Amino acid sequence: MKKRIGVLLSGRGSNFEALADSVAAGRIPDAHIAIVIANREGTQGIERANARGIATKVIPSRGLEREAYDRQIVAVLREQQVDLVCLAGYMRLLSPYFIQCFPQRILNIHPSLLPTFPGLESQRQALEYGVKFAGCTVHFVDENLDAGPIILQAVVPVLDTDTSDTLSEKILREEHRIYSEAVKIILDGRFKIEGRRVIQLANQAAHR
Amino acid sequence: MKKRIGVLLSGRGSNFEALADSVAAGRIPDAHIAIVIANREGTQGIERANARGIATKVIPSRGLEREAYDRQIVAVLREQQVDLVCLAGYMRLLSPYFIQCFPQRILNIHPSLLPTFPGLESQRQALEYGVKFAGCTVHFVDENLDAGPIILQAVVPVLDTDTSDTLSEKILREEHRIYSEAVKIILDGRFKIEGRRVIQLANQAAHR
Repeated sequence: MKKRIGVLLSGRGSNFEALADSVAAGRIPDAHIAIVIANREGTQGIERANARGIATKVIPSRGLEREAYDRQIVAVLREQQVDLVCLAGYMRLLSPYFIQCFPQRILNIHPSLLPTFPGLESQRQALEYGVKFAGCTVHFVDENLDAGPIILQAVVPVLDTDTSDTLSEKILREEHRIYSEAVKIILDGRFKIEGRRVIQLANQAAHR
Repeated sequence: MKKRIGVLLSGRGSNFEALADSVAAGRIPDAHIAIVIANREGTQGIERANARGIATKVIPSRGLEREAYDRQIVAVLREQQVDLVCLAGYMRLLSPYFIQCFPQRILNIHPSLLPTFPGLESQRQALEYGVKFAGCTVHFVDENLDAGPIILQAVVPVLDTDTSDTLSEKILREEHRIYSEAVKIILDGRFKIEGRRVIQLANQAAHR
């Protein structure tokens, strides 16, 4: 049985596309993107999912209280029998209700070396702070912003000539690479969590 | 005329030794360690400086108000005509008075990828947070803890098998490397500061 992935996005969804490419190429084996959900109308991510023939759903979040909205999302994810939820540029905090419905089964990718530069415009934050290395982080999602246990990170150098655009582009290439790798690790169950540390296991021993 | 370096330390001073080695080997050319000052009696750093025939001074800080103490230190540094002050495991915040006496001429090294994990036991903080990369930072010193503009950083991977000791050791090797490199850049004047970004300049144009 293929593992079923649900993707949530709010925008262009380039990380969704990277995941879809990895599934198609077998880099994430025995997996299937069951559904792509957007919280707004007219996102590029949904267009691209449609173009790939992947099931999509738009559930507008505007004006809804967080948990009320999340209950709609969770209902769709359950209906689709999703094993793993991947956020890909999803611009909402999840409610405790949502988190509890998918324990250790919700991932996010963030364009910084967390815990530095959480929140918006991390690449600009990194440049303005003057760090010499930046990067990205795949982590489990909890109720706090960009705060759950870290599965993988990747590092890129910040050059004196870098702008927010060139830095974002370098980081994005790494995002696409490590998000797929992290999804594979989690779907394989090849990990355990000790405190906040996510430890990779050599073979399919693990966890569930 | 050789550039004169003053080193402040509170303990074993391994970064002082790395600087002394680099000066001796010509990796920091045309420089001289003029004085090593400790704020406590009986530090390994002072012993090691003495063994190398470098001038030392112990000025106990206990019980003194910050600026009163710093005035003593600054007097010694001025008497020694120091061009650059390097903190090497110096466990005190500097007063605004001290900072103003050596504008952009005080460096520190910290065993984390600042701005993450400032303060004490950064390596343990990194392990407990579960980051996948750690490192070290050479930065200008201002009145805040581990907060001035960053000159150089180095990255090391955090392995699942790492302990605080193994991680500290890996980071320390990088500290010894980049501290010397940063001192060379600053003594050469090959940099400018834009906002918080320290930009390296190709040749001796720059700055002063």
